[in-house]
Amino acid sequence: MNFHAKLVAAQSKKQSVLCVGLDPDIERLPIHFYPELSPTERILAFNEAIIESTLPFASSFKLNFAFYERFGTAGWDVLERTRRLIPADIPAIADNKRGDIGNSAKFYAQSVFEVLDFDACTVSPYMGADSIAPFLAYSEKAAFVLARTSNPGGADLQEQKIGEDSLYKILVSQLAKQANSHPGCTALVVGATNGSAMAEIRKLAPDMPFLIPGVGAQGGDAKTVMQATYKGHGSIAVNSSRSILYASAGADFAQKAAEEAKKLMHSLRP
Amino acid sequence: MNFHAKLVAAQSKKQSVLCVGLDPDIERLPIHFYPELSPTERILAFNEAIIESTLPFASSFKLNFAFYERFGTAGWDVLERTRRLIPADIPAIADNKRGDIGNSAKFYAQSVFEVLDFDACTVSPYMGADSIAPFLAYSEKAAFVLARTSNPGGADLQEQKIGEDSLYKILVSQLAKQANSHPGCTALVVGATNGSAMAEIRKLAPDMPFLIPGVGAQGGDAKTVMQATYKGHGSIAVNSSRSILYASAGADFAQKAAEEAKKLMHSLRP
Repeated sequence: MNFHAKLVAAQSKKQSVLCVGLDPDIERLPIHFYPELSPTERILAFNEAIIESTLPFASSFKLNFAFYERFGTAGWDVLERTRRLIPADIPAIADNKRGDIGNSAKFYAQSVFEVLDFDACTVSPYMGADSIAPFLAYSEKAAFVLARTSNPGGADLQEQKIGEDSLYKILVSQLAKQANSHPGCTALVVGATNGSAMAEIRKLAPDMPFLIPGVGAQGGDAKTVMQATYKGHGSIAVNSSRSILYASAGADFAQKAAEEAKKLMHSLRP
Repeated sequence: MNFHAKLVAAQSKKQSVLCVGLDPDIERLPIHFYPELSPTERILAFNEAIIESTLPFASSFKLNFAFYERFGTAGWDVLERTRRLIPADIPAIADNKRGDIGNSAKFYAQSVFEVLDFDACTVSPYMGADSIAPFLAYSEKAAFVLARTSNPGGADLQEQKIGEDSLYKILVSQLAKQANSHPGCTALVVGATNGSAMAEIRKLAPDMPFLIPGVGAQGGDAKTVMQATYKGHGSIAVNSSRSILYASAGADFAQKAAEEAKKLMHSLRP
């Protein structure tokens, strides 16, 4: 089953578009949670508890590699082991934003799709089509290309005007044109904090899956996201990390994370 | 000593702007070189031989992370150990093209500058100024921001016209404006395959260090590079990987690599 079919099945089964972000910041873990373990082993145990408690409400999980790479090789080890904790029928998304060319792009794709066995990853488009193509060569997987991001600096390049259009629209149009040759594989990252951009991108790319960060701690509104982008099961995965992971710093963190995930899931229904 | 001072000192001592790229492709290593070792240990031994043989001619080394991440955690282990083989007075550049926001960018910077202890890294600019800033917070280090890359797809976004100017020129102008507040820290990646772009970028950013890939196997011309970009010690680091690493597939690979590095070094003199 390819990424998109797996996402459709998981979202249909759970009636949820929620993607739980496993971005554990060691400084924010519950202090009394396994204090005897090393930082990376504490993170693994924390991830395991979060995956277990939020699984009824999450139709995908996403790992941002920065939170692991800050521990070097030991972090990569925990990244690999965390990925294996995600059940096989739930899409696992690598949020690593790689972007390189030729053999480098090929090896990054091999790393994330073959060695780590993620179902999808994020990709940065600055180096152009030949930096994205090696990820699309995996018909079972998907590449979420950064389109319009939710951060303040997102506008710096993405909103530059090419004639009438913004750069991100040029990019989305280029990707939409070639998406038919890789159905379900070409996907987009679209930040939740910009309602009109979301709607415009959905118009340009009616059939592409969107990964939508920025709901929750970053301030994006669930109803706006749904109205602007939702097109049925598999059309969007809405990520939230901090509001779930740190719902409580006490011994009840896993239960509170589940409650927050459930609340978010309900707010994200069409 | 910060990155830029270290680069100036190394280039001045060796009269060389050559940066040797440690991008070992396991399929291209000499077949009879340590066949009893695991792939990652063979790579480490290969890197050690290349560093030793090319050291008289290299004023910096660059590691592209894709060639290590394709082996997962074991690859990161060899990446860390390879970095430690580079002498302390020679700048070590991480070619990892990270680009993310907020805490993620901060943790990527912490990973590459504190955990791995590289002197500089490459950064992708698509997410804007706040994705680059955390790398510039390290006054001892430097961030090479992708400007105009040497691959065919480099034109897809980078050459989009914003009024009269190409996107990459808008980016370079933005970076040049803020470079004064981080002297020597803000740097650029400029591909060697486009002579007029190199000259235009040098005009917009007269004082920024350039990392220039694309000479050698990719077809960039040494004389053109020097004429368009060289401004004295520390102004450019010209990378070559394949033409040096695979100069010979026989038992004499290290010696041939040294000969090729020496030849390149001489071709890159002002």
